[in-house]
Amino acid sequence: MTMSVTTRIDQALRAAVAQATQRGCPPRLAEALDYSLFPGGARVRPRLCLAVAGASGDDAPELADAAAAAIELLHCASLVHDDLPCFDDSPLRRGKPSVHHAFGERLAVLVGDAMIVLAFQTLARGAVARPQRLAPLLLTIGDAVGMPCGIAAGQAWESEPRVVLSDYHNAKTGSLFVAACVAGAQAAGADPAPWRGVGERLGEAYQVADDLRDALCDVDELGKPVQRDALLGRPSAVEELGVAGAVQRLRDLVAAAVVCVPQCPGGGALKDLIAGEATRILPKELAGSAARDVQGS
Amino acid sequence: MTMSVTTRIDQALRAAVAQATQRGCPPRLAEALDYSLFPGGARVRPRLCLAVAGASGDDAPELADAAAAAIELLHCASLVHDDLPCFDDSPLRRGKPSVHHAFGERLAVLVGDAMIVLAFQTLARGAVARPQRLAPLLLTIGDAVGMPCGIAAGQAWESEPRVVLSDYHNAKTGSLFVAACVAGAQAAGADPAPWRGVGERLGEAYQVADDLRDALCDVDELGKPVQRDALLGRPSAVEELGVAGAVQRLRDLVAAAVVCVPQCPGGGALKDLIAGEATRILPKELAGSAARDVQGS
Repeated sequence: MTMSVTTRIDQALRAAVAQATQRGCPPRLAEALDYSLFPGGARVRPRLCLAVAGASGDDAPELADAAAAAIELLHCASLVHDDLPCFDDSPLRRGKPSVHHAFGERLAVLVGDAMIVLAFQTLARGAVARPQRLAPLLLTIGDAVGMPCGIAAGQAWESEPRVVLSDYHNAKTGSLFVAACVAGAQAAGADPAPWRGVGERLGEAYQVADDLRDALCDVDELGKPVQRDALLGRPSAVEELGVAGAVQRLRDLVAAAVVCVPQCPGGGALKDLIAGEATRILPKELAGSAARDVQGS
Repeated sequence: MTMSVTTRIDQALRAAVAQATQRGCPPRLAEALDYSLFPGGARVRPRLCLAVAGASGDDAPELADAAAAAIELLHCASLVHDDLPCFDDSPLRRGKPSVHHAFGERLAVLVGDAMIVLAFQTLARGAVARPQRLAPLLLTIGDAVGMPCGIAAGQAWESEPRVVLSDYHNAKTGSLFVAACVAGAQAAGADPAPWRGVGERLGEAYQVADDLRDALCDVDELGKPVQRDALLGRPSAVEELGVAGAVQRLRDLVAAAVVCVPQCPGGGALKDLIAGEATRILPKELAGSAARDVQGS
């Protein structure tokens, strides 16, 4: 199943790129798009989206694929813009030069913009057979990346004099996890309400794991610069709770996410995915003990 | 009629801003959104969209308003990003400091991203009563701003070693004029095919007018820096044809656009709008004679 989900995401993203780079496209922009998407990271958000669609019956797989691809496109767009000199000024992403280092700042801005547009185009193309589902899906995904509480808003909290840490994390990281879960259900025509809680807890767990990896991993393991939170004076769960406290918080959140999964045919497989994820996202030195705890919960 | 169209556009944009700046929005990002949209420029693209919708029966005005607002949001997003230091580095836009001068580079990147998202959210909200029209409208508008041939692609041609001038202009300026016309018809449930030619010619005319104003106007008349084309070594109709040749080309294009308008109830009003536009977009010193010629055509 994991293999097939990975293939579905890859094919949906490749189809979107093929549409975007048709005849008439500036060649370097086309290269920058491919570079921004492949090879991918863990594709955790689109895998979550397809897992929830699967657990909900997946009666319109082409729409679920489109939703998953749209979510990954928006995630990657946010990474390209986050790495820009005016934000993190990161030279590395996923173990290779960041997009603006490889293609220049102009193409990094433009390919990010184009990926946002491509996400919505991809969604519309996937909804041909299910037009009634397009608007709700689009609003779910749009809310997760725009204003007032999506990724752009989350990033914008870094430019405010006063920030509530949870608002910042919910918008910057949590929102797209919630959208991945809710959109998975919506794409399959299921009631999305119960899935919001799953996404909220997983988004928070992922943010804690990210803070742990930033504090503990080396640059080779992470593929991007480390200890950026401390360097940039950003709030972090490790700074707030210490390493042991942050690991405990992550454990609690993953257990709570599993409890939120509603009764559904694919619920078991989904719980396995969540437990596996909890191991994968931890720094190697912590993964063993945390995995045992999660699988026991 | 002009009054009413202006009011419709303003109300649709204000409703979109109200949605985007609800509780939870970072205050400075909310300010930057308002600043990027108000006071507006001539709103030529959304006026064109509503004029075509009107000429096509306008049976779903809330959807036409949403399409017009989406198009203006995307246009304004492209201006905010175009003004960034890595592109034009423009200190002025519409007679006031550009967004990155007023709010910093980070918020300029983020508000541009958020406006792209908001455009598609606005379209989806306007399509509640006409779900079948959402995907075609979204694809029309998305194609005009993304890849392979929309605004982002047009801007990206500036980073390529070789450019065909017409590809560059069609993508950077023409595409959104075409979308404004086609979307106006689609929002009203009419056949969009005949409107493509109108949009293509108006887009090209607008580009020629823009080149003329860049070459001839002073900064007070234009509200942004002038003679940027020559300064930045960019191709321009004035450089290619001279001032008199460029004015003749603009005349021919506007006349050709009028000829393309299909038989429809609101065709007369639309032709008047086009003729008025042709006068408005010319530098003051040229407007008198050109207006006479267009109105005689």
